[in-house]
Amino acid sequence: MAKHVSVGLLGLGTVGSGVVKIIENHQDQLIHQVGCPVKIKKVLVRDLYKKREVQLDSSLLTTDVNEVIQDPDIDVVIEVMGGVEETRQYLLTALKNGKHVVTANKDLMALYGTELLAVASENGCDLFYEASVAGGIPILRSLVDGLASDRITKMMGIVNGTTNYILTKMSKYGRAYEEVLAEAQALGYAEADPTSDVEGLDAARKMAILARLGFSMNIDLQDVYVKGITGITEEDLNYSKRLGYTMKLIGMAHRDGEKVEVSVQPTLLPDSHPLASVNDEYNAVYVYGEAVGETMFYGPGAGSLPTATAVVSDLVAVMKNMRLGVNGRSAVMPQYNKKLKTNSEIFSKYFLRIHVKDQVGAFAKITSLFSERGVSFEKILQLPLKEKDLAEIVLVTHKASLKDYEEVLQQLRDLEVVAEVKSSYRVEGDGVL
Amino acid sequence: MAKHVSVGLLGLGTVGSGVVKIIENHQDQLIHQVGCPVKIKKVLVRDLYKKREVQLDSSLLTTDVNEVIQDPDIDVVIEVMGGVEETRQYLLTALKNGKHVVTANKDLMALYGTELLAVASENGCDLFYEASVAGGIPILRSLVDGLASDRITKMMGIVNGTTNYILTKMSKYGRAYEEVLAEAQALGYAEADPTSDVEGLDAARKMAILARLGFSMNIDLQDVYVKGITGITEEDLNYSKRLGYTMKLIGMAHRDGEKVEVSVQPTLLPDSHPLASVNDEYNAVYVYGEAVGETMFYGPGAGSLPTATAVVSDLVAVMKNMRLGVNGRSAVMPQYNKKLKTNSEIFSKYFLRIHVKDQVGAFAKITSLFSERGVSFEKILQLPLKEKDLAEIVLVTHKASLKDYEEVLQQLRDLEVVAEVKSSYRVEGDGVL
Repeated sequence: MAKHVSVGLLGLGTVGSGVVKIIENHQDQLIHQVGCPVKIKKVLVRDLYKKREVQLDSSLLTTDVNEVIQDPDIDVVIEVMGGVEETRQYLLTALKNGKHVVTANKDLMALYGTELLAVASENGCDLFYEASVAGGIPILRSLVDGLASDRITKMMGIVNGTTNYILTKMSKYGRAYEEVLAEAQALGYAEADPTSDVEGLDAARKMAILARLGFSMNIDLQDVYVKGITGITEEDLNYSKRLGYTMKLIGMAHRDGEKVEVSVQPTLLPDSHPLASVNDEYNAVYVYGEAVGETMFYGPGAGSLPTATAVVSDLVAVMKNMRLGVNGRSAVMPQYNKKLKTNSEIFSKYFLRIHVKDQVGAFAKITSLFSERGVSFEKILQLPLKEKDLAEIVLVTHKASLKDYEEVLQQLRDLEVVAEVKSSYRVEGDGVL
Repeated sequence: MAKHVSVGLLGLGTVGSGVVKIIENHQDQLIHQVGCPVKIKKVLVRDLYKKREVQLDSSLLTTDVNEVIQDPDIDVVIEVMGGVEETRQYLLTALKNGKHVVTANKDLMALYGTELLAVASENGCDLFYEASVAGGIPILRSLVDGLASDRITKMMGIVNGTTNYILTKMSKYGRAYEEVLAEAQALGYAEADPTSDVEGLDAARKMAILARLGFSMNIDLQDVYVKGITGITEEDLNYSKRLGYTMKLIGMAHRDGEKVEVSVQPTLLPDSHPLASVNDEYNAVYVYGEAVGETMFYGPGAGSLPTATAVVSDLVAVMKNMRLGVNGRSAVMPQYNKKLKTNSEIFSKYFLRIHVKDQVGAFAKITSLFSERGVSFEKILQLPLKEKDLAEIVLVTHKASLKDYEEVLQQLRDLEVVAEVKSSYRVEGDGVL
């Protein structure tokens, strides 16, 4: 093995700075584990003269990506620049040049993970991406190694810290969405443009990656049903609490036999569910395996040093493989063909809040509409509203197929006595599955 | 690589049966991951004719250990028989015969782990023991691989399901220790002789193993301070609740600079602590790393299939190494010399419950004894007792050194106004460290 391992960094932002710090501060520990030092040889940046959190010799910085991905001395490329199309080209070139790649890029891995892993394998290179899901939580490695012998049937994740922060503050303190979002932006938990977080797209990318590994199936991003948190109101949160539930943005991946469903949507969890007490910007992934039963992995989902921990732990894995001469041989291709459930195969309980006209027989009309479809209720509340001639009905159904439920919803909207369907959410059952 | 991998099993009890089931039921998945089938060639049992949960061809069973550990065709020995001295000899022989070993034996690994790992390494063999700590939770692999780049400074674990079950039922329903213990025994959560669980020894073994890996230091079992749950009363649990704490049997391993402390003792956790909501027979390990911050790993700590999941996942790791030809090369020896804290270097808050004589000036005598030692209070309650002329004082100190606190305790016991020191527990702080 070489006297040291040379690393090229693409990007020196939040996560990149963390990577530099950990490599510098934990050098003796890294040497102990892998037998040689790690040296950062080159760092791609946009602006050579920007003031940064970490001090690096200016000779290490470059604005020319080829000084990283074409340098024959660089063993490992760490990608923490983000972006998709351009970044994909850079990493394909790096892999074709025989460089191992560590990336924290969930967008890229969700869209092009399969391609990149295949190219890595063809070129005898490692491609690791632990940091792409749930920051500092070593969840991908736990799925691949720790639970290797089990058959995973369900994963539920709080995998977006921004939305969990917002929902926690809204639920606990009755604060308004816009106010908490502004606070999250000020604290750096939310981006200036929060769309990708609050509309659930960021979580969907992570769920695609998790489902691919957990179910050993080529799940694509477009296979994930996505609904964000922007429509959640104070009323919804109050009723959730009253009924013994906690509202979370849940990424869910569920396997029944050979078929799977993957979604991201606001979900009411029973208060006793392990994920219900995961608050603020924290992330957690709940994994149900046929043999192991319920497990949960909890930790920081983002942030400079937590995410960098996952990146550098991947680097350690690459270096251990270099020492053993076995790079590029650990990836396992998906075992199963993708089979997605149809809406008549997806079952869940649902929470529904409706405004109805305060007429004799309104309630009966609504309930008979459900019972015609075979959808029954677990909980039901009817309350008067301040608005004249309106009443509010809140109900939680027993398990129903998504197909039946959507038809009921459509027919409700068409019903003369229904003024408005205010909200509708998935409800997680009490049972483990 | 061979056409199949041959496994010899030592033991066919609870965990052994689970191992057989998983190997049989998940065969296609195992083949996909490691490229060849797994075959169970021989199983050491005590009684050939006992009725068992799994059906194995009687030709596979033997009462002669040499048919497993001396058989040149057996590649991997899975040890799920328990016991220490005899088992150690078997595994040493197996390793010297070039067999890889997977064990679920915490007693053995706590006492002879260092020796066994060295012999494994000398003989080019893998020795994996994920199942020895926290059953189905892949915590050892997470420490070694997932958090490889971080410097772990604190681990706290609920690593004994029996005591967690007992404490949960006592706290939640105000039930008596003996009654809940009997129930736990009936449910199979507690052994007929529960000593090793309730006195904390089982948890101590697991903490020695965790501390060794997390701190990269040769921690021995005798380095772990141990106190069990048998002295905990209903009063203690009621006061804990009233003060905002949850009582748990906590294994704690803490590093300050170069020095460490490891203990197992009943501990009052703030209700908001992630471990406080780990209930019933569940286990969890909370890990604090300098870079990653707070993480927690939650799951079933025991049981046939959960523990067997960890065993067979280790087997998969051995088989992946066989395919790559790199067995016996992944173990990393401890990096640091063992340095244990003295009692004057161990700091904590403490909960103390005392019965004092109801005399003028008693309270002042007690508080001045504390203040002479520089130990101050965070919370203090004084209540009358039914017993004539006695009052109960409950207090929680600010952080104090164990040395100072023990001296205060001793002097309290000698004080004329103190009728009895009823109980004393460690209190976990609100801060992350």
